[in-house]
Parts: sequence; structure tokens; C-alpha cells
Amino acid sequence: TTADLALEARLRHKIDHKTKPLGALGLLEALALQLGLIQRSESPALHSPQMVVFAADHGIAAEGVSAYPQAVTVQMVGNMLAGGAAINVFARQHGFALQVVDAGVAAELPAHPQLQPRKIAMGTKNLCAEAAMSRAEAQAALAAGMQTVAALPGNVVAFGEMGIANTSPAALLLARLTGAGIIDATGRGTGLDDPQLLHKQAVLTRALARHPATEPFDAVGELAALGGFEIAMMAGAMLQAASERRVVLVDGFIAGAAALVAQALAPAVRDYLVFCHRSAETGHRLLLAHLQAKPLLELDLRLGEGTGALLAWPLVQSAANFLNEMASFESAGVSEK
Amino acid sequence: TTADLALEARLRHKIDHKTKPLGALGLLEALALQLGLIQRSESPALHSPQMVVFAADHGIAAEGVSAYPQAVTVQMVGNMLAGGAAINVFARQHGFALQVVDAGVAAELPAHPQLQPRKIAMGTKNLCAEAAMSRAEAQAALAAGMQTVAALPGNVVAFGEMGIANTSPAALLLARLTGAGIIDATGRGTGLDDPQLLHKQAVLTRALARHPATEPFDAVGELAALGGFEIAMMAGAMLQAASERRVVLVDGFIAGAAALVAQALAPAVRDYLVFCHRSAETGHRLLLAHLQAKPLLELDLRLGEGTGALLAWPLVQSAANFLNEMASFESAGVSEK
Repeated sequence: TTADLALEARLRHKIDHKTKPLGALGLLEALALQLGLIQRSESPALHSPQMVVFAADHGIAAEGVSAYPQAVTVQMVGNMLAGGAAINVFARQHGFALQVVDAGVAAELPAHPQLQPRKIAMGTKNLCAEAAMSRAEAQAALAAGMQTVAALPGNVVAFGEMGIANTSPAALLLARLTGAGIIDATGRGTGLDDPQLLHKQAVLTRALARHPATEPFDAVGELAALGGFEIAMMAGAMLQAASERRVVLVDGFIAGAAALVAQALAPAVRDYLVFCHRSAETGHRLLLAHLQAKPLLELDLRLGEGTGALLAWPLVQSAANFLNEMASFESAGVSEK
Repeated sequence: TTADLALEARLRHKIDHKTKPLGALGLLEALALQLGLIQRSESPALHSPQMVVFAADHGIAAEGVSAYPQAVTVQMVGNMLAGGAAINVFARQHGFALQVVDAGVAAELPAHPQLQPRKIAMGTKNLCAEAAMSRAEAQAALAAGMQTVAALPGNVVAFGEMGIANTSPAALLLARLTGAGIIDATGRGTGLDDPQLLHKQAVLTRALARHPATEPFDAVGELAALGGFEIAMMAGAMLQAASERRVVLVDGFIAGAAALVAQALAPAVRDYLVFCHRSAETGHRLLLAHLQAKPLLELDLRLGEGTGALLAWPLVQSAANFLNEMASFESAGVSEK
């Protein structure tokens, strides 16, 4: 809109007249502009940041595509609810409220104040043999993600995930939604060795061939065939967050796959996404390049949970802070170039 | 020592048994190990972090090697003391006490509670014509940097700098101390265009030739010939901080040059340095490669002041926090691979 263009010009002027050489705050300057545009404000303010971890299991785990047994999903959910996982440490450090959403863990989970029961099914089906989920399940997962965000306070949300084998659906969605080769899209996940990686690549090549591309292209259909419940729910959560003009902190490869799905459903969601970390996972580089995203961090993380998003959060605050608090050349009496 | 080796083994065991895949926290794992070794503790604790900005002027500014006039040094010191610079914003955000040290600004500075008067001279001499400073001045600056740190509380120090034209002495020290070519070592600083960059490269080539390498190698002699007061003082500050086993947050290119000098004087200082940011400045990549340093951030900053160091600080805290707070596989009942 015209109003947005005028705001962008005012934001750029404000950024460029801070007491620093032009562009000297690098990526933080583009981020400050993005925050201002998201909030439609020259003085964006971030408050009550929320961390939501979507957890689910994957039928394809039966094919031996992960270094860890499927039982680890439910164990790690327990660890998160007990406060012992990496994401808990970083959420406490940065003052994020944390909730875990059972999107489709293959076990009954006992009730817990930080656990939202939104289980679609006891894990997806094995997508080597059939669709991971029905179309109705995909739509239900998208809707559940939307509802999760609609109930949250604050104007910043970070999304993470836990799901043994979930780099497999992420790689498949990357290949299908961007045209990347499935071999290039497939990486070592949490630590496959060479023979295990070759096996995973063979399994995913077979799986992708099992599900011909939808024609005409149908993002929900692709999500149902190739996705996972945590990915679907996170995509819905991103759509809702963007519709409410919240800042969305995007973690690693799995969250990136959810972003691809969300963008396929509603391209405007892209403007609300802050890409936080580029992982060592091969496909993640391709995914970010496709989205023309330059992430804030590159720390060789390969943990998921939302850890990359929370580690980048202070940089997001710094972007807002320099925009709001730094002196201008005029106000400080400093000579411009 | 044997005790250090035993501690390292215990730290690696602790890191590897946290509830995450092996190595999944990437650079934070190496950082947690470093923090433990610096503090000789399996549970490193960081407190009372201090930010010190060393400010000085440079005779070589008269050669037109900077995009900004020399007067900006004193203006930016004023801006920092008034709280309006980028470094103030980030120091407030992260709870760093901030002091500015007048290492050799070419103006009398009015007294201020956050300003330490340690002026060696009213800027260095023009090193195109003569040594930047005398050997006695270089030693006085190193000693002043040591005294500055010795008086500080806490166990974490971040160093920044302000000094128009100071990428020039940094490039010269990089070339002399590492053998890098002076053309490769010379970059755009705060924003030179192509003709200005060519001019700077010509000036620095001439300057380097004006001062033959010391033989036998003499780091203090090189510092006197090619350096700056803020660089010398920062090098002394790093040496003192390491001797007290403080964690040292190293900012960008100028701080990197100070680290080169400090390492030339006492190689063991390297173990205490946390390299925080890789800037777009050409020579910085060479400098970090020489020190075998993999910095935490790469945000295209080219501001100095210590901004890269403070922006990386939350990651340093995260490294300590995961080491201290995350559950182990045993304590959380999670299956290992």
C-alpha cells in the first residue's frame, strides 16, 4: 500500500541517520526495517515472546532413516516438560513462555500445564507405502496450529519441533515445493554416518516417486502426502501469526519446511518470518536460498526444538533497540560523511 | 597441565551426555569447553560483564584514508558518554557497565564519570613519515591497558574502539604480524568507494615500506611503528584480562589486530579470547584465519565500538547455561543413540 511505502521510506531515513556509517549495522538494519513494517510503526516494540514446540511422530521412522529410536520423541517431550532440554534453558534465559503441543506423538501423554493436547493421530503413516496423513488430517493440523497461536499473548512467536525422523518429511517437502533434488535435500539429521545417509537417500527417493506431484499444484495435498503433523501445525501457526502481524522466529530445517508450506498457501506470510539459523543440514541451505533468506546465525546447530530461534532472539531485540534508542547525527552533533 | 587435561575430559563428557545428539549445539559446545577451561570449572559462571571502549586518533588520517573527518572521534566519544551510540544501546540491553578510555584522542576531553583519562598523546604521528609512536609510548599504552582491566570487577570483559582511520594501523599490523599482503589486508573501513580504497592501499603500501620489519622480530617495535594508542592499550588490556583468567570478548577488525599484538607478546592469551564477529572488512577474514578463530557472528557489521562483541554476548551466556542447566541422558531418562 501507499501507506506502507511511505512508512518504509521513513524507516530507512531513520536507520540511515543514526550515528554510524551507512549500513554499518549490517543485517540488523534490514531486520529493524522488517520489524517496523510488520508492526506498521517507526518504533517497533516487542513484548511477551512465546515459544511453542510442536511434537509428533513419523511412520517413516520404521524405515530406519533416523539415528535415534522413535521412543525418543516422547522421552524428549517429557524432558521439555520437566525443564531439562536445551530449549528450556534458552527460553528461561530469554524470558520466553514455553508450551509443548502434542501434534501427533505416538503415545498417550499425561496431562501437564505446559502441554497442549492437539493430537491428530498416533504419528503419521509410513509415507513409503501411503499418504502420511489424509487431506482432512492435514487441514485439521493446519487449523490446530492457527488456534494455538490465536490463544497466545504477545507479538512475537518462536516455533520449534520435536519428532524423530522429521528431517525426512522436511526433505521431501523441500524437494516437492522447490524442485530441489531429493538427494541434495536429504542430510544427516541428528548424525547419520555415510551408509545410513545413503540408505535415507534411497528411502526418500522411493518415497517421493510413490507420490506423484499434484496437478494442478495443491499445497495441502502435498502436505498430506509427504508431511508431518508438527510441520503442518507449525505452518498453520505461521499463517495465523502473520495474519495477526506478529513477528515469527523461524528455527532450522524443519521450521523452514513449514515456512515453505505456509508460503505456498499464502505468499504474504514471508514478510513476517525472521530466519534465525542456517544449520549444517544440506537441504537447509537450498531451502533458505529458495526463500531468499539470509539467516541471523550460523552456529552449526542441528538440534531443532526451536533452539536456533531463541539463540537469535537477542539480535532481534537489538535491531528494535538501535532503531528506538540510538542518537541521530543531528541530535548528537556528529559530522556526517 | 595434567589437571587441565583431566578437566577437559570431564567437560567433554558433560557436554556429550546432555540430552541432544552429539555435537548438536555446534559452536556453543566448543565455547562451553573454552569457558570451563578459562575458569577451571565444570560449571563456569559469568558475572559483572564490563565493556571498555578505547578511543584514539591517528596521524595517518591526514593522508585521507578514512571516509570521515578526524573530528568524528571526539564527537563519537561525546555521543558514547551521552548514551546515544550503538554500543550504549547494546550495553544497556545486556547489562554491561561501559567505560570509555581516552587512549590518545587529539583533543582535550572534559571530565566525565564514564571517561578514563589515559591519554598517551594527542593522537599518533603520521606513520607515513615516522613511527606512529615512540617505544616508550607503546609500552606506556600497553601498561595503561593493563591497569584499566586490573581495576575492573567481574570475570568477563569486552573491548571496543573508536578512532577515525584506525583500520589503517590494523591493516598494517595484520600485514606485518601475519605476512598477509598489504593490499589484501586493506579494506573499505567505514565506507570508502573504489578510488578511495585504491588511494588507501597506495598509502598503506608506502607506509609499510617506510618501516622495515624488525629483526629479530620485536612486537613492541612493530606496534610503535605501525600501531595506534587504542590498539596498544587494548592489547595490554587483553594480556591483563587473560592473566586474571577473565573471558575476553573480541570485537571486529581493530580488536583482532590488538589480539595479534597480544598474542605476539604472550601466545597463551589466545585461550582466553572469544572471537565474536567476522566483519565484511577484507583483512578480517585473513586475520581470523591466522588465529584459527571461528567467530560466533557474521552480521556484516562494520561499526566497531565493540558492537560485535556485545551482540554475541547472549551466545556466550547460552553456552554456559546449557552446560550448567541441561539434563543429561541419564537424569532425563532419554535413550542414547
